[in-house]
Amino acid sequence: MKKIEIVQGLLAANNATASGNRALLDRHGCLAVNIMSAPGAGKTSVVLRTIAGLGATVRTGVIEGDVASTVDAEKVQDAARAVVQINTKGMPESCALVADMVDAALRRMPLDRLDIVLIENVGNLICPSEFDLGEHVKVVIASTPEGDDKPLKYPLIFADADAVIINKLDLLPYVDFDMDRFTHAVRDLNARAPFFPLSCKTGEGVAEWVAWLRDRIHKA
Amino acid sequence: MKKIEIVQGLLAANNATASGNRALLDRHGCLAVNIMSAPGAGKTSVVLRTIAGLGATVRTGVIEGDVASTVDAEKVQDAARAVVQINTKGMPESCALVADMVDAALRRMPLDRLDIVLIENVGNLICPSEFDLGEHVKVVIASTPEGDDKPLKYPLIFADADAVIINKLDLLPYVDFDMDRFTHAVRDLNARAPFFPLSCKTGEGVAEWVAWLRDRIHKA
Repeated sequence: MKKIEIVQGLLAANNATASGNRALLDRHGCLAVNIMSAPGAGKTSVVLRTIAGLGATVRTGVIEGDVASTVDAEKVQDAARAVVQINTKGMPESCALVADMVDAALRRMPLDRLDIVLIENVGNLICPSEFDLGEHVKVVIASTPEGDDKPLKYPLIFADADAVIINKLDLLPYVDFDMDRFTHAVRDLNARAPFFPLSCKTGEGVAEWVAWLRDRIHKA
Repeated sequence: MKKIEIVQGLLAANNATASGNRALLDRHGCLAVNIMSAPGAGKTSVVLRTIAGLGATVRTGVIEGDVASTVDAEKVQDAARAVVQINTKGMPESCALVADMVDAALRRMPLDRLDIVLIENVGNLICPSEFDLGEHVKVVIASTPEGDDKPLKYPLIFADADAVIINKLDLLPYVDFDMDRFTHAVRDLNARAPFFPLSCKTGEGVAEWVAWLRDRIHKA
């Protein structure tokens, strides 16, 4: 039982820091979005499409979480108003962002000049679901080549999502992905999250996702 | 420093159990292969292609690791001589198989009647690289729709691999994946692992992978 107690202690400390992050964001009227997916599902592409879709009147900051490299931060640096890269390699938790990391990143961002912060989590369908970061919205991206059985195998991350993006719609003719089977599997876990099937490659479906997100900003 | 000491204690215990697993497998002349990848890269498809490629003269057991569900065990149960499903949901480590779980699974398998055990790890490019399971061969599968930058972002799992499979070669015309960039990124981390580009859908390239693996069985 020792280990479980320690883990619960860490999670309680994480939740406290996450609450502080949320209060800081709220004081600045800034919406935070935690974007989670498996490696290669298209988190960075969704971030880029989202910034472009929101347009120049919405001031966007990005926190990029990766085990290693600055590949993603480099991709978004021209599009976003502010970008902070977090590399988790060698940290006690390397498989997901935790609230402490986001706290440190937020302190380096000009929050009074941002309307939204997109937090791109580490590519992982398991660990990120355990850590509240202080976000207002949790988004999970599934991509069609991954297959339609992911909600059965990684239930927690889909159960907790406020929105589910299904990316790489352009690959649908070439892969085995049954949209009905996927959405029914998510619905068994999560009664409320809207689905946004889209393609970051072609732009199909992006407008619906951006409209939904824009509505959340106005409520923040 | 408290947490790091505890984690190191867990890893030392894991390594001891892994050594026990390896000794057990060696006593039965049984090769164990740890198959790792991101969610949806095609681990189960590779397992099925591998069993078919090795043919009826090689007796194959499979350990299926997933957070939840028995989807994969059901897919392989007709092909393998023995299948054990491990669900990690609710266990202290849920994001990867650990040596204790494999120990329990091996005790439920008829090792004296198996030549090889394929261990399908939990879909994750981070956590599985931390835990020795007692395997003889570590294989990482990357799939073309994930993009060619995965070795930069998840270096440890590629650095430790004994072989790298590049799956979903049939999708290459439809995705942004530069084979040279991928293989160079892996070579920067790992001087020795052979590459096996293949498609589980069409069967292209599977024979080369199976031939390499078959040669390892004879050496076990």
